[in-house]
Amino acid sequence: MRFKKCAEADSAKKNSDLNCASAQAILAAARECFMEKEYTKVTFREIAKRAQVTSGLIPYYFSSKEKLASMVYTQLMDELALKISQVDIKHLSCASQLYITVYLQWIFIDEVPEYARFYYSLCENTSGQYWGNGEIWGNLVEGFCKEYRLEVSERDSELFQIANRGETRDLILQRYYRRRYISREEVMDIIISNLFYNFGMSDPQIYQAIQSGKEFLHANFSDKIEKND
Amino acid sequence: MRFKKCAEADSAKKNSDLNCASAQAILAAARECFMEKEYTKVTFREIAKRAQVTSGLIPYYFSSKEKLASMVYTQLMDELALKISQVDIKHLSCASQLYITVYLQWIFIDEVPEYARFYYSLCENTSGQYWGNGEIWGNLVEGFCKEYRLEVSERDSELFQIANRGETRDLILQRYYRRRYISREEVMDIIISNLFYNFGMSDPQIYQAIQSGKEFLHANFSDKIEKND
Repeated sequence: MRFKKCAEADSAKKNSDLNCASAQAILAAARECFMEKEYTKVTFREIAKRAQVTSGLIPYYFSSKEKLASMVYTQLMDELALKISQVDIKHLSCASQLYITVYLQWIFIDEVPEYARFYYSLCENTSGQYWGNGEIWGNLVEGFCKEYRLEVSERDSELFQIANRGETRDLILQRYYRRRYISREEVMDIIISNLFYNFGMSDPQIYQAIQSGKEFLHANFSDKIEKND
Repeated sequence: MRFKKCAEADSAKKNSDLNCASAQAILAAARECFMEKEYTKVTFREIAKRAQVTSGLIPYYFSSKEKLASMVYTQLMDELALKISQVDIKHLSCASQLYITVYLQWIFIDEVPEYARFYYSLCENTSGQYWGNGEIWGNLVEGFCKEYRLEVSERDSELFQIANRGETRDLILQRYYRRRYISREEVMDIIISNLFYNFGMSDPQIYQAIQSGKEFLHANFSDKIEKND
């Protein structure tokens, strides 16, 4: 099974171009802009100016601001996932690694004010449909499908991840606005167990995978978990 | 167990006022406006003019355009649910009734161009977090919790419904844009089985409830189902 990577999602034609200097300059400039101000306040003009390209070039490479933001988002999440993969979690199942990775990504986002502002303003202002999940995410999903011998087509996998993104987004905003109403752990449990359920894992498998993830986090990141919950 | 109705969700103080003539006039005018044009193009000024009130009165009763639209949405969904409840489905379990109700609501929305425009433009342009689910929905949820003796607190119920709304929204938009990629039945199966799963129903219970719903729909609404799938 192969999983689509974010960048491949809707414009295969242009992807080969995205490695060129201009596209990379635009992406880097966009990231700077998104880190400095709210999603809604960033303009193509400003990104173009900073990237030293004409603003008409941006929609040529990236169809919309949302698309551009989704690539910045994916880049950021992949960096965090890479940082997390250096923590020693390889002895755990891919399913547990996925739980731990998502949990820590979210905590790391909240630790950096610029990341947090970008993340929540993106959640709030876009449909969130086009968020890519990044390469490490794709590998973890592929990994747990192998572990549990789940037969999930590429198409179904994509649909389940779309469903999961919508529910993640709504619960994350709910927690953002009503912090004492829902804990981080509850959000994690709902979204990850639904993801596993959609892919066809059984209840005991889901319980076991999430439980191992929790144990690891409490043993190794209890300070971060407690401070943030 | 009691479930919050939409209108109670975030402004208990004002709710007693919502029955007054001005608030009702605003709601009726808003509905007309939302039926005539895209969500983003409707303004408070226009609604006020049509309701013959000053535009400052709208935010007094309804905190935002999104809130107002969510009340129009709830009203519309309740009307459709009421129409559906007149179909003879009372002999089925509440869980199956819920599946049938959501399925038919969606088909009925697509049959009326104004409803469809309103529905998809609301999906696309708002976070969807504040969509109310209406009274009939609340009763069906309460009903299936009793049937399966599910112990779900009011708060958890609300959270599960928020998660469900996010995933519904994303899958519905996915189908809207890529009609041949995902069928209506697939969207329904993902969202309803996740809802039941969150509330604690077992896999065989979920399968059975959805299966009875499907059989009823194919026996009684095969024309609508086939035309729309």
